[in-house]
Amino acid sequence: MGNTFGHLFRITTFGESHGGGVGVVIDGCPPQLEISTEEIQIELDRRRPGQSKITTPRKEEDKCEILSGVFEGKTLGTPIAIVVRNKDTRSQDYDEMAFKYRPSHADATYDAKYGIRNWQGGGRSSARETIGRVAAGAIAKKILRQVANVQIIGYVKRIKDLEAVIDPDTVTLEQVESNIVRCPDAECCDRMIELIEQVRREGDSIGGVVECVARNIPKGLGDPVFDKLEADLAKGVMSLPASKGFEIGSGFAGTLLSGFEHNDEFYIDEAGEIRTRTNRSGGIQGGISNGENIIIRVAFKPTATIRKEQKTVTNEGEETLLAGKGRHDPCVLPRAVPMVEAMVALVLCDHLLRHTGQCRVI
Amino acid sequence: MGNTFGHLFRITTFGESHGGGVGVVIDGCPPQLEISTEEIQIELDRRRPGQSKITTPRKEEDKCEILSGVFEGKTLGTPIAIVVRNKDTRSQDYDEMAFKYRPSHADATYDAKYGIRNWQGGGRSSARETIGRVAAGAIAKKILRQVANVQIIGYVKRIKDLEAVIDPDTVTLEQVESNIVRCPDAECCDRMIELIEQVRREGDSIGGVVECVARNIPKGLGDPVFDKLEADLAKGVMSLPASKGFEIGSGFAGTLLSGFEHNDEFYIDEAGEIRTRTNRSGGIQGGISNGENIIIRVAFKPTATIRKEQKTVTNEGEETLLAGKGRHDPCVLPRAVPMVEAMVALVLCDHLLRHTGQCRVI
Amino acid sequence: MGNTFGHLFRITTFGESHGGGVGVVIDGCPPQLEISTEEIQIELDRRRPGQSKITTPRKEEDKCEILSGVFEGKTLGTPIAIVVRNKDTRSQDYDEMAFKYRPSHADATYDAKYGIRNWQGGGRSSARETIGRVAAGAIAKKILRQVANVQIIGYVKRIKDLEAVIDPDTVTLEQVESNIVRCPDAECCDRMIELIEQVRREGDSIGGVVECVARNIPKGLGDPVFDKLEADLAKGVMSLPASKGFEIGSGFAGTLLSGFEHNDEFYIDEAGEIRTRTNRSGGIQGGISNGENIIIRVAFKPTATIRKEQKTVTNEGEETLLAGKGRHDPCVLPRAVPMVEAMVALVLCDHLLRHTGQCRVI
Amino acid sequence: MGNTFGHLFRITTFGESHGGGVGVVIDGCPPQLEISTEEIQIELDRRRPGQSKITTPRKEEDKCEILSGVFEGKTLGTPIAIVVRNKDTRSQDYDEMAFKYRPSHADATYDAKYGIRNWQGGGRSSARETIGRVAAGAIAKKILRQVANVQIIGYVKRIKDLEAVIDPDTVTLEQVESNIVRCPDAECCDRMIELIEQVRREGDSIGGVVECVARNIPKGLGDPVFDKLEADLAKGVMSLPASKGFEIGSGFAGTLLSGFEHNDEFYIDEAGEIRTRTNRSGGIQGGISNGENIIIRVAFKPTATIRKEQKTVTNEGEETLLAGKGRHDPCVLPRAVPMVEAMVALVLCDHLLRHTGQCRVI
Repeated sequence: MGNTFGHLFRITTFGESHGGGVGVVIDGCPPQLEISTEEIQIELDRRRPGQSKITTPRKEEDKCEILSGVFEGKTLGTPIAIVVRNKDTRSQDYDEMAFKYRPSHADATYDAKYGIRNWQGGGRSSARETIGRVAAGAIAKKILRQVANVQIIGYVKRIKDLEAVIDPDTVTLEQVESNIVRCPDAECCDRMIELIEQVRREGDSIGGVVECVARNIPKGLGDPVFDKLEADLAKGVMSLPASKGFEIGSGFAGTLLSGFEHNDEFYIDEAGEIRTRTNRSGGIQGGISNGENIIIRVAFKPTATIRKEQKTVTNEGEETLLAGKGRHDPCVLPRAVPMVEAMVALVLCDHLLRHTGQCRVI
Repeated sequence: MGNTFGHLFRITTFGESHGGGVGVVIDGCPPQLEISTEEIQIELDRRRPGQSKITTPRKEEDKCEILSGVFEGKTLGTPIAIVVRNKDTRSQDYDEMAFKYRPSHADATYDAKYGIRNWQGGGRSSARETIGRVAAGAIAKKILRQVANVQIIGYVKRIKDLEAVIDPDTVTLEQVESNIVRCPDAECCDRMIELIEQVRREGDSIGGVVECVARNIPKGLGDPVFDKLEADLAKGVMSLPASKGFEIGSGFAGTLLSGFEHNDEFYIDEAGEIRTRTNRSGGIQGGISNGENIIIRVAFKPTATIRKEQKTVTNEGEETLLAGKGRHDPCVLPRAVPMVEAMVALVLCDHLLRHTGQCRVI
Repeated sequence: MGNTFGHLFRITTFGESHGGGVGVVIDGCPPQLEISTEEIQIELDRRRPGQSKITTPRKEEDKCEILSGVFEGKTLGTPIAIVVRNKDTRSQDYDEMAFKYRPSHADATYDAKYGIRNWQGGGRSSARETIGRVAAGAIAKKILRQVANVQIIGYVKRIKDLEAVIDPDTVTLEQVESNIVRCPDAECCDRMIELIEQVRREGDSIGGVVECVARNIPKGLGDPVFDKLEADLAKGVMSLPASKGFEIGSGFAGTLLSGFEHNDEFYIDEAGEIRTRTNRSGGIQGGISNGENIIIRVAFKPTATIRKEQKTVTNEGEETLLAGKGRHDPCVLPRAVPMVEAMVALVLCDHLLRHTGQCRVI
Repeated sequence: MGNTFGHLFRITTFGESHGGGVGVVIDGCPPQLEISTEEIQIELDRRRPGQSKITTPRKEEDKCEILSGVFEGKTLGTPIAIVVRNKDTRSQDYDEMAFKYRPSHADATYDAKYGIRNWQGGGRSSARETIGRVAAGAIAKKILRQVANVQIIGYVKRIKDLEAVIDPDTVTLEQVESNIVRCPDAECCDRMIELIEQVRREGDSIGGVVECVARNIPKGLGDPVFDKLEADLAKGVMSLPASKGFEIGSGFAGTLLSGFEHNDEFYIDEAGEIRTRTNRSGGIQGGISNGENIIIRVAFKPTATIRKEQKTVTNEGEETLLAGKGRHDPCVLPRAVPMVEAMVALVLCDHLLRHTGQCRVI
């Protein structure tokens, strides 16, 4: 178990990096939603390897096929199965990693848990697993946009110690997609690209922080006490490969303020709506959306697989050295942006359907 | 929905701060476990208001009663219902808060979602809700201890900018309980107490960070890709009142290291076990426990309810001022420690039972 | 696990026949529903032992208390916990049954599964367990009635070979409650009462069939392919103690017809609605309600505990004889009627909320 | 939602009769189980149309492909995705049924619920949907066989009023497969075949009863009170197309006996095991398996789609006549046998894993 996410908008993903393919089954998508392969492909292309000079140069087309649940361009209300075939070619770069465990990777724990592992690549722990999430996220985004004009925009907030200045209330998708690092701070993004290229040359890797904002959120989403909206968001993004931390609103920095400084004062806006002057709550109070922008941040560690030689052990229990081969991302952040957006969309869509019911929303 | 947590060790909590009572139903507890009201009460007393001069002076005895699932001191394998009665006395401190929304509290969002709210107190959003979690956590802890000698120890790592120095690998429960702030850094804890008392005098509040370590964890717990161990831990603690951030292992700080610096080298220990020299992974790799200590941190914002006057609105949509009355915690951290421990225990116990099966574990 | 039922209207029951008490937590009840202890008590009184001369003469008052989720007579949208205390008095009738397994009862299988059992009574396998179901069913019925004027009426259709003639389309609750056997066929019910009293005198027991109709069902309830409405109804009633069979519409008898004879012809009624002339489908086609009356039947075996002496074994593995003591129902059917109604109501309410969403329905 | 079944051995099916394909994702299959496409294909061939002269003459090869979760012939512990492609050819037989609702079929209710329907065939309500169940059932059967030598054998017990004499304790798969009607009563099966052919010539259809036995069941499976083994079995088979009734053990006929006659006396067998002399309980007492053979029966109504002309309505709300075209089964029973077996296997495998844990069973 463990491969299903959500309750009313529920996805089940499958697939290893090698073998027949990867994909997702989406159960609970409302009927009569217009959806096309092209719309899903746009999001898949944003997470695809080889999309720019700072990602892995592996070429993977990742063309998706919709197997079920869509008829004449509209959803049927039945499960939507989406598949992306794997290429048959196996990388010989993995020959050594078949028996040497990569430090801080999942090789050793998968062997410990299952006693078996598809060593031809990252297997189920490969970032390729997120294809199903991103495909499902594309549909969740469309539902949210259509029902409530919800906008979900992620971007790179920090690479190592290079922190960008971005206004989550006004940032646009166009700004994010205007550069290959997906950081809508024009000045900072150049330095980020430079740093990533330098790290790649050194055979090393770096991490950073993705920020994601969701705007136009209806009030009232979230189900206390365990399915609080921030709890489900945290679970969603902390299930992404390489994530090490989660924040909502003021996050860890908020603990440096006093209550008087931290509290978001209420006021009545021109439309008569209850609003908050500040948004340290990050759009959620008591586990329920308050209509302000939802803002989260996710920490991604530096990629585990690096070319620099490191000490490790074999699956036979002998100490050895390993220098990662293959064409791995020196920095996952640019490709992590659509993954974070997808998880945010999946959580919000699930909670939206809990409130509106499944068949009436579109 | 939203009040059930876990799959094989599954808890459902109920109760508002006012009304008949609060409690929990635990489904999936293995049979033949020795359990007593006293063991549960010990944990409840750690989260109880009025336990020290730095918590709220409200006196709540919080005596628990086991209604079902235990016979002659042993669990039956059937649901364990635990109830703590509420005191009938209603605080008049809430008269004003019945119609004035506390900034950054759940009053307004509950009204927006449900259109009704028990205004006699915090209702379901009261920290009193966590009684059921802590009671269930006491049983989860006992199972973990009995099956695998797992130790779960939480403590206050930081209050505002006062950060303690604590070694998670060696810290003991006795050290944690040796002072009222639950910070096992003798020097730092005095300054923390001083700061909390000063903040209380000012009618303000402060937050901080709780760290929690789980030791002697069996390898192999966690179910990728969505029920990764860190994802379930994140959901668990981010569902606690006032939590704003979650980290595992190196967390956000880990993003400042390169992959070479961050990776945990493997080695073979004297017992022939695969181990890691460092533990930036926080005991989990690829969503699965690797046998090293699990270390998480949780950010808690400053308490929302303060005596200082603030701008807010009424439930009729008028702007007004509110100065919180009543005896609220100036800092929830000391009482949050057993709550974090409980959520960690619940997650680990659930994943333990997924692997060992429900009826054979004890 | 196994003590939770439903997804959006989700109940968790707890309690053994002896110990502190039995009850239920209802998660997902829409807010602002008016509900009182009295309304729930009416249904509990219908399942209560000692209510008439043909049930067990055990006197159990079964007074319920609402612990949470209701404020000033209205639901809060938070979990509703309902408790019925057990009487402390232990029946000495169970002394022998503590070590002698009652044939066709759950004593032996509970011991095999859990290795422990509350032998002071039926424990968790006691029909007393259904108190939580019936209490939750009372609330589910009210929601269904209020939202869509749904009527759910169960009745005794057959006792042993005495089969009543009842029109499910017109039968009323008043007719059902007009006699102690809950069979709205005035002539047949007298013979049923006579038979039950005779069987009791002989120290034996009998079973029969409960039929239940749900009227005014909205079209479109049910979620193929696994949560088809009849599948969830079947699970619900087959989880009741002593149930051995389930039918929807034409049921087993329908297999004796040809397709041409069995199919329900469609027509357009005066209101322009699509209707069926006959209702062999029992109100459900393809797992989805079609707006016709839902009609199910449940077979209940004769009560296992009887006064007649029978061969059995002890928990030490020795063959022995057992003559059941105590005051057991010679026929559970009259008390099973509200239990069946409750399960039907719970299933329908869950599926209703899947479609309308949780917070908007009332 | 509604397309996922099971908790620890959890399947999610997808696919309409037309479109890309149908299939299943199995989550929770233990690792290191040897499994091949051929083993799965054997079961798919048993449910395949066109397998004999008494099923529909439609030729569908239904060749399955395993997309994930299996590596070098062994399961990985990750999700197993299995796909069967649909043939692109669309039957023109459905042109009329695109707007005329077949009586007692799912056409009208799908339109009522979803407002859209794949009218090129049965869509999601087609029996083709069961391909995913049968494929998953093949794996569940193998686990059960390997762990506990469990045997699951279904067969046609009755066609219309032709009832076979079969001993569930000794019947073999070879006997079942020895004739095209899957009825291991040599004399009766000939008359059944004759009847089915006659009904087909008349353009009509017939139903009947499938019985299924599961032998060598470990004691202790089943989770009261809602996930009783018979409740989950009932849900599983009542979610199959065309099923109208479910019985366990004595079923409806058991209601004609007195308790003294019905109770299964216990005795101690030569191995010292507690056994029952009779098995009216059908292998389950109190919702938990007692080690005796589990015996269930499922009523299947006559196929809804028939060639005989019937009154019906159009999706525009006009009354009309419809004579079903195409090559439909005159009797689904022979093909329903592997479907019932699959659902029984899925339920038992799920409950087996609840007890033994996921990763240790093989």
